Parts: sequence; structure tokens; C-alpha cells
Amino acid sequence: MITLTSDFGSPYPAAMKGVIRRHTDAEMIDVAHDLPRGDPRAAAFWLRFVLPEFPPAVHCAVVDPGVGTDRDALVVRAGAHVIVAPDNGLAMPPARALAADESDVEAWTVAVDDPASETFHGRDVFAPTAARIRAALDEVSGAPNGAPDADAVAETLAAMEDLTPASDPVDISFPEPTVERAEGSEEGGDGEEGGDGEVIAVDGEVLAIDRFGNVITNVPGELVRGRDWVRVDGDLTPVAETFGAVDPGERLVTVGSHGYAECDVNDGRGDGAFDLRPGDSVRFVPDSVSL
Amino acid sequence: MITLTSDFGSPYPAAMKGVIRRHTDAEMIDVAHDLPRGDPRAAAFWLRFVLPEFPPAVHCAVVDPGVGTDRDALVVRAGAHVIVAPDNGLAMPPARALAADESDVEAWTVAVDDPASETFHGRDVFAPTAARIRAALDEVSGAPNGAPDADAVAETLAAMEDLTPASDPVDISFPEPTVERAEGSEEGGDGEEGGDGEVIAVDGEVLAIDRFGNVITNVPGELVRGRDWVRVDGDLTPVAETFGAVDPGERLVTVGSHGYAECDVNDGRGDGAFDLRPGDSVRFVPDSVSL
Amino acid sequence: MITLTSDFGSPYPAAMKGVIRRHTDAEMIDVAHDLPRGDPRAAAFWLRFVLPEFPPAVHCAVVDPGVGTDRDALVVRAGAHVIVAPDNGLAMPPARALAADESDVEAWTVAVDDPASETFHGRDVFAPTAARIRAALDEVSGAPNGAPDADAVAETLAAMEDLTPASDPVDISFPEPTVERAEGSEEGGDGEEGGDGEVIAVDGEVLAIDRFGNVITNVPGELVRGRDWVRVDGDLTPVAETFGAVDPGERLVTVGSHGYAECDVNDGRGDGAFDLRPGDSVRFVPDSVSL
Repeated sequence: MITLTSDFGSPYPAAMKGVIRRHTDAEMIDVAHDLPRGDPRAAAFWLRFVLPEFPPAVHCAVVDPGVGTDRDALVVRAGAHVIVAPDNGLAMPPARALAADESDVEAWTVAVDDPASETFHGRDVFAPTAARIRAALDEVSGAPNGAPDADAVAETLAAMEDLTPASDPVDISFPEPTVERAEGSEEGGDGEEGGDGEVIAVDGEVLAIDRFGNVITNVPGELVRGRDWVRVDGDLTPVAETFGAVDPGERLVTVGSHGYAECDVNDGRGDGAFDLRPGDSVRFVPDSVSL
Repeated sequence: MITLTSDFGSPYPAAMKGVIRRHTDAEMIDVAHDLPRGDPRAAAFWLRFVLPEFPPAVHCAVVDPGVGTDRDALVVRAGAHVIVAPDNGLAMPPARALAADESDVEAWTVAVDDPASETFHGRDVFAPTAARIRAALDEVSGAPNGAPDADAVAETLAAMEDLTPASDPVDISFPEPTVERAEGSEEGGDGEEGGDGEVIAVDGEVLAIDRFGNVITNVPGELVRGRDWVRVDGDLTPVAETFGAVDPGERLVTVGSHGYAECDVNDGRGDGAFDLRPGDSVRFVPDSVSL
Repeated sequence: MITLTSDFGSPYPAAMKGVIRRHTDAEMIDVAHDLPRGDPRAAAFWLRFVLPEFPPAVHCAVVDPGVGTDRDALVVRAGAHVIVAPDNGLAMPPARALAADESDVEAWTVAVDDPASETFHGRDVFAPTAARIRAALDEVSGAPNGAPDADAVAETLAAMEDLTPASDPVDISFPEPTVERAEGSEEGGDGEEGGDGEVIAVDGEVLAIDRFGNVITNVPGELVRGRDWVRVDGDLTPVAETFGAVDPGERLVTVGSHGYAECDVNDGRGDGAFDLRPGDSVRFVPDSVSL
């Protein structure tokens, strides 16, 4: 199986599929091709969310700022999964989510001959690399879509001559929020651990902006769900299950299907209204005001 | 075969596909993931249009108001087809379209453990339910994508322990329009039956609003096609084959690929301009005025 | 393999897939269903770009002005590939790109019974035609997705009774730009041939407008890449790798993934700002002004 992820829109991914089909009969499944343009951090966020649902597969993911992609291609093994992506960090968070532990993650680079050429790298570099790896795994497993185990995947990749071990691949990290609780203990971690007192405040960070401008934070949904109001960086904001709970143009906090708190605007863009960008810190303070 | 339908956009459906692929090798085909958000009626309309084209399959369709889905999952057998969907009515119109007759439609519920949790039900409830059913059918037919007949499907579902017969699933109905003809006879039915005189008026209903704001009625296209003008709730409106036949911002009536008359606006939203919502009644009166 | 291309949006292509699956188990791959509406020229451009990446396949492509499609269906063999499309020219440029030479392109028509009926031709004419051809090829190759060679494909099509040789299918042509170089020689061709002096001017043509309003010309990207400025029909315009290099609303020239120069507007429509439409001529003059 090969999954495909990009910010290419259509019909570019079809060119990649044509190329792949010349190398292998493996099934191809689209993850998304409308990811926020040129935003490896958003791609990393979504792949970390989606890829762990898949059985072992080769994942080809191309999101990079600029037209074309002027970086080496990175091949990352995470357990029995393989991610093929530009060396801009997007592969590492999903790789960690896919692997049993850090020692089960290995990276290689595939040199791109002429990064600044007018080549379409998704088609000419990333798709063929993913396809050649999948074809090699097909051979190991004796069938397209077979699933060799992590050791067999590691051996297969180690035997590919154009892969060079990557000593220091670019990385992206998504920090955990800090949850402050009533008894005064300030706990690191995801808010599940530590004191069981009432939550006083959560210091989080913006993980990604989706293409509608919704601001996805690293604050777990359970910390806001069920409340009526929360202060976001000091501003009182309604918490709601649906956008329609507030008037068009009004701000709200929701919990997305990914399980995190989002800062949104009904019929508008949350990133503008809340003035938040990926990587910004954001403070949530529960509020029980009744207006 | 499993078809997938939702209002999730991307990349959520990919998570559902990963989950399904852990249970079965059955082919997965997307129907749509950009259906009008939270509108089971629109989903029912489109599924009634599309699903009858498929050979027997398991159809997983998740459209529900609100974030997450706080209803039981419904499993509906319609002949040799199976629909897995929230119990909000969206499954019933396509089920009736797929079944030979009403007696060939059966429904069960699958209890959702904690409807209000932060779980992503598409991934955690509906996809695994569809996949487990498909895997059971794979076993009956001896192959992924095999097509057991209706009796075998019924037996397979009856043998699944977590399915409880549903006595009264939520339903959505799409009424037929009333066509008034020249000889004064007022006929029920779809306008094909009854008097063969000239059509004087058609009392229809709005079936769905698509995501462009086009108002899809239950008035058969043949009743307006070929005319130049029609009165919609009294207002004279041009009938045209293409949006471009009228100026941007202008109203028109077209016939969509689904075969029904639509109330549209070129470069605008028909639902606003015609002030029509799903379920509203709408009266079409042919007019031969020359302006 | 069957590829599917249209301007239908969703969920109409799913109806086509259901129909196809009743005829053949061949793999179905989407090229795009969001092509510019009713624009066969844009479809021809994109298919010429994408289809040559695929191994031999049946390509079903439906883009036509107007609601429904009121033309005969065209079946074009290009080497071992087959394109099924309306007879409006969209099939010919990709056919030439797929074939070794013009003699390897053959065309037939399939009569459409009642072009003006309310039938959805994508589902009722084009999909079944593509599926019947694929099913016939499946039989020749002994397996779904088998790849008979060009001769076997030609024989298979010649044996299909409802195909009539098409003497004069509608065609669309994409001209090459004219490149004027410093030594005074004016060369036809794609700018690769001829004098090696500096480029003075390129007289190109608009090949397509994409759905964002970006104006795709036939000017090879290498003729603008690396420059800071170029005059487009006399107006000085920055050349940039990314839209973000200019302020919102500002014009720029980029090189798209297809390798051609594009006239774009950051957060706007290039077709409006540059006043260019498909088929218009456009003159690029390199400029080394420093502002």
C-alpha cells in the first residue's frame, strides 16, 4: 500500500499515481491533496493524526514552501512503515507516532539531482522513490500490498544503493501544553497526569492552521468540552459544539475531530480573529461567568 | 466493496480508510466527502441518486449535525446492499432505492458506548462497523469484494452479536410533486401519470441545497426543459441549460444531472435569492411570455 | 485500469464508478473532477500533461459546455491507450502525447441516442462505453488491469460493433511559442532549438486558465526562471517562485509544476488582471531593470 499526501490540489497527484503504477501494483490511497499550501508543520500535524490508523505502508508526502521542492528527499522508516518526504521536518512527527520507540526510527536521504530545475519533484523524485521502495517490499513479501515486518523493511531499505543514512534530518516538534491546577501544582504533560484539582489555566501552543483558518491548538479537547466559556489569551470566548451556535463573524472555541481545542470564527477565519499563527503560544483559562 | 460518504472534507476520511484496511482488503470507493455539512437530508438525496448505480456493497455514510455524532449507528440491509450510517434518517431513502420492495429493507442498531466523548465516530464507530460487516461478507463469499446475495447478507447480519434489530429507525421522506394539468384533473405522482393535457402548474418541494447554494427541487426536469420561462412562486425566471445564459447575480432555473429542476443564481446562491430551504414547498408555473 | 476525469465535482463521478464496476473489476483512478467547468481546452491541456505518466489504460474524460453533453461520444486509440470523451477536441492533444506518432492515433464515434434528453451522459454514455472497452481488453489480456499491446487494442476496438470510424473528429491544437533571439534569427519550436543567443522576446499563447484564474501560457519555464522581471504585453512584472513574494492583489509571473510560465495574482485572479483568455497571444520580454 502507498498513501499519498500533498498540497498540490488536482490533477498533479494523478501524475504521481501514473508514475507509481509503472513500478508497482500496490494499492494507492489518498490521505489529502488540499493540505495548507507550503506548510510542512500542518502536514506533520495531519499525518501524525492519520497515518497511525493505517497498517504498515509506504507513505509519500510532499508539502514544501516554494514552487517545486528544492530539498533532498528523505526516507524515514518507522517500524514497518516508510515515509518518503522532503527533508523539511514533516516526516518526523508522524514517524514517531508510527514507531514503537525512537530507536525504531531511521532516516536516509535520496539526493535530488538538480533541485532548482523545472522538474515536478512530486512526480519525478518522490513518487518514483516511494514506488521503488514499495516494489522492493513487494518482492520481499511476495505480493503487492504484502506487509513485511519492521526488520525486513529495515533490511530492504539498507540494501537500496541510492539511500544515504541521514545523520541529522530536519525535525518539527509539537510541544505538550502545561496545565496548571487548583492545588497549585504546575504539571507538565498532557493534562492527564498530576494533581486532580480543578484546571486553572492551560498554556498551549498553536499546532496548525487548517485551510479554513481554524486555529488548532495542542490543548486537549477534554479541558474545554462541557464548559460554556473560556478565556483565550484573556478574551472571553464561548465554547460550542457547532459553528452555528454563534452568529456569523463571531469567535468560538470548539473541539475538532482530532480531539484538540480549536479557535474558530463562524463563517470567518480564526487565525485572523485570534491573531494566532503556527507555533504561537496561547493561554486558555476556564471561566464560569454567566452573562 | 465499501463506499464512503461524509461531510468531513480531508484528511479525516483517510483515517477511516486506514481503519477499514486493518479489517478487510475490500475495495474502497469514495462517493463524496464534501456533502453539505451536517445535513442528513442532503446526504439522503445524493445517496439515493448515486448508490443504486453500484453493485451490492457496504456503504458507510456519516453526515450528522454537530461535532462528532451523538447517535447510535444504524445498519440497514437493502437487498444485498448494506448501509452503515447514523440513525438520523439519511440511510432510509437510499435503502428504499436499493431494495426491490419495502420488505427487503431491515435495520439494526449498534450501540455507541459514549456518544459524547471526544472520539471521532467516523473512525471509531462507523468505519470499523462497516469493515467488520464487509469482513464477514468476505468470509461468506470466500473473497474480498465477493457479492453474496440478499439472503446471505441477511443471515450474516442476523448472526452479528452486537447488532440489535431497530424497531423504529429515524426516517426522511422525499415527497412527489403534484402536477396540475389543463383538463382540470389534479394528479398525484411524478407527472408521468394521469391526464395528457398541458401542464398548468407543479407544486413541488425543495429536496436539498447543494454546497453552491443551488436549490434542488423534486420537480422532474422534463416539466421545465425546453421552455424559455417559468414562474417560481410567482416570479418570472428564465430556464437555461447553462449558468452563463444569464448575467452574474441573475436567477435561473436549470435541470441538474440528477434530472430535477434547480433554482440557481449565476455566480451566487440560489437558496438566498429564491428564499428556499430544504422541505419548503415551491410552485412552478410554465409561462410563455416573450419579453 | 480506467482513469476518470471530469468537471462534475462530487458526487457524480461516484455514479460513474458504480456503473463501471458493474462491467469490470479494473482499477479506477481519478485524474481530476474539478477541472474548469465546460472548458474542453483546459481539459485537453491537463490530460496532455497527466496521461502520459500512466501505463496503457482506458481514460474516460467528460468535460463539455452546457448541462449534459449533446455530442457523440468519441473513442480514440493512442498506442495501447484508449480515450473515451465527448467529440469536442479534448481527446486529441493527449492522444498525440500518448502515441508514438500520428499514425498510431485512430478515432471512432459512439452514437448517443438522444443527446438532448435529461440523461446524465457521464453515467449513461461515457462510463459504460469506457467500461465495455475495458472489459473487452480484460478478456484479451486474461485479467483485469492487463495491458494488451497497441495492436491488440486496435483489433479489440475494431471488433466492437457500435463503434463507427470517425473521419473528422473535432480537434484542439496547442501552438508552440516563437522565440526571438539576439543574433536576429527568429526560431520556431520550443525555444530549445536554434540560435544560442540571448532571448529578446517570446510570443506565446494562453493554453488554459486554471480554476484559480492562473493564466497558463505555452512559454517554457526555463525562459523566465532565474530572472527578476519580465514584461508581459509591455507591463513590467516580477518573476517569483512563490505567490507570497508579492503583496496580495499584485501580479507576478511564476513557473507552474507543468513547467510553463504562468501569469498570476497573489490572492486574486490572473485572467482578470492580465486580461488574458485561452487562445489569446501574449508577449514575454525579459527585462533586467532594477527598480
